[in-house]
Amino acid sequence: MNQSTETEIRIVLVEPSHPGNIGAAARAMKTMALEHLYVVNPKRYPDPQALWRAAGGDDVLENAVVCTELADAVGDCHWVVGTSARQRRIPWPVLTPEALAEEVGGRPGQRICILFGREDSGLTNEELQLCNAHIEIPANPVYPVLNVAMAVQVICYALYRGHTDSPPLVWDRPPATIDAFEALMARLDRVLTDTGFLHAGQPGQAATRIRRLLTRTQLDETEVAILHGLVTHIEKSSR
Amino acid sequence: MNQSTETEIRIVLVEPSHPGNIGAAARAMKTMALEHLYVVNPKRYPDPQALWRAAGGDDVLENAVVCTELADAVGDCHWVVGTSARQRRIPWPVLTPEALAEEVGGRPGQRICILFGREDSGLTNEELQLCNAHIEIPANPVYPVLNVAMAVQVICYALYRGHTDSPPLVWDRPPATIDAFEALMARLDRVLTDTGFLHAGQPGQAATRIRRLLTRTQLDETEVAILHGLVTHIEKSSR
Repeated sequence: MNQSTETEIRIVLVEPSHPGNIGAAARAMKTMALEHLYVVNPKRYPDPQALWRAAGGDDVLENAVVCTELADAVGDCHWVVGTSARQRRIPWPVLTPEALAEEVGGRPGQRICILFGREDSGLTNEELQLCNAHIEIPANPVYPVLNVAMAVQVICYALYRGHTDSPPLVWDRPPATIDAFEALMARLDRVLTDTGFLHAGQPGQAATRIRRLLTRTQLDETEVAILHGLVTHIEKSSR
Repeated sequence: MNQSTETEIRIVLVEPSHPGNIGAAARAMKTMALEHLYVVNPKRYPDPQALWRAAGGDDVLENAVVCTELADAVGDCHWVVGTSARQRRIPWPVLTPEALAEEVGGRPGQRICILFGREDSGLTNEELQLCNAHIEIPANPVYPVLNVAMAVQVICYALYRGHTDSPPLVWDRPPATIDAFEALMARLDRVLTDTGFLHAGQPGQAATRIRRLLTRTQLDETEVAILHGLVTHIEKSSR
């Protein structure tokens, strides 16, 4: 185990052909709060296309480590996984992106490498056999081939989701109480009956349907006030 | 409920600047088994960049519907959601990609639109207020700005991964289309202004809050008819 409790996640692009994909991967990482990018033996790099596609992830791109051998990127790591689209002859343990996030969460303080292969041919068998596990992104069997930077985005998203709770609902007004809601409904029923929209004695389905409409969206206090205003408007108009 | 049990999911790119992003979105959709791409008022399209980035998603790109108005893409849909990076002044219900997948799973047979905004400025407030809910991709608060095609990939992935089997919504009436809903809203606005409830020229927050209330609960056809009846009631009462 590493002394640090900080997990280091490295995204390793193995022999990418297109510099745009390197930049796009850097941006994808940045949006998911990852920063350690390694690029093994890129065909064209540095390149203006990479910088352009990196957008606000330019710092990740600038700090990227370029190496000539995969061993230089993975050597000091504790756990290595590689993305793979197809099942190999000798199957490896295969993780979904979400299962990967679980695994990473269970390895605090480790340096973890995630390998992404070439645009046209992915990772070689030798590279895949270097891995502790493989990752497969569930995809359309007819065409499961994600662009490499897209695959980086999906994996990084799953990792970010892995240790982030879903955001609580943000709302600008307090929710109305049931009492406040029922008072509104009672007044609405009365005014709609008095003014002839609902028929006294046989309100029929309309009253129930209006209630269903307003109950299934939890009203906030301001909405209750606006609807009271509307009821007053109907009341006054029909005098 | 709709006769068909097949849910149709439309990915709608609103005024994309870069043709590469249109192609990349088509590929992202294809990898996640989605096929209905709409492009509203693209700056450069068709374009060889789009085709190149589409790769094996070229059929999705070729079948894409290009329109000049957003209304043409969403009008016959039943439920519309839009991606948004920031919280608005009047907040809308916000879904994570996974919660979106749950919601979609609960709407069999509906036509569902997912809107993605411009590269530089996203969706306008007006476009966001057309939506029944907003989607926010959980991301690095320091830089949460995913490339638009990357956002398409993440959302489509979440949809493909699907939902724990939440029971489908059972309802007694077909959902209203967006066109029917917008016609109701336009008439409601007009009558509430003519009769003095909303002030012409400065409708203020009340109009937006009423819209938010009625968008976040997807209306069915009977509810739209009842609300039309109520608007007629207000109109006649104030004569």
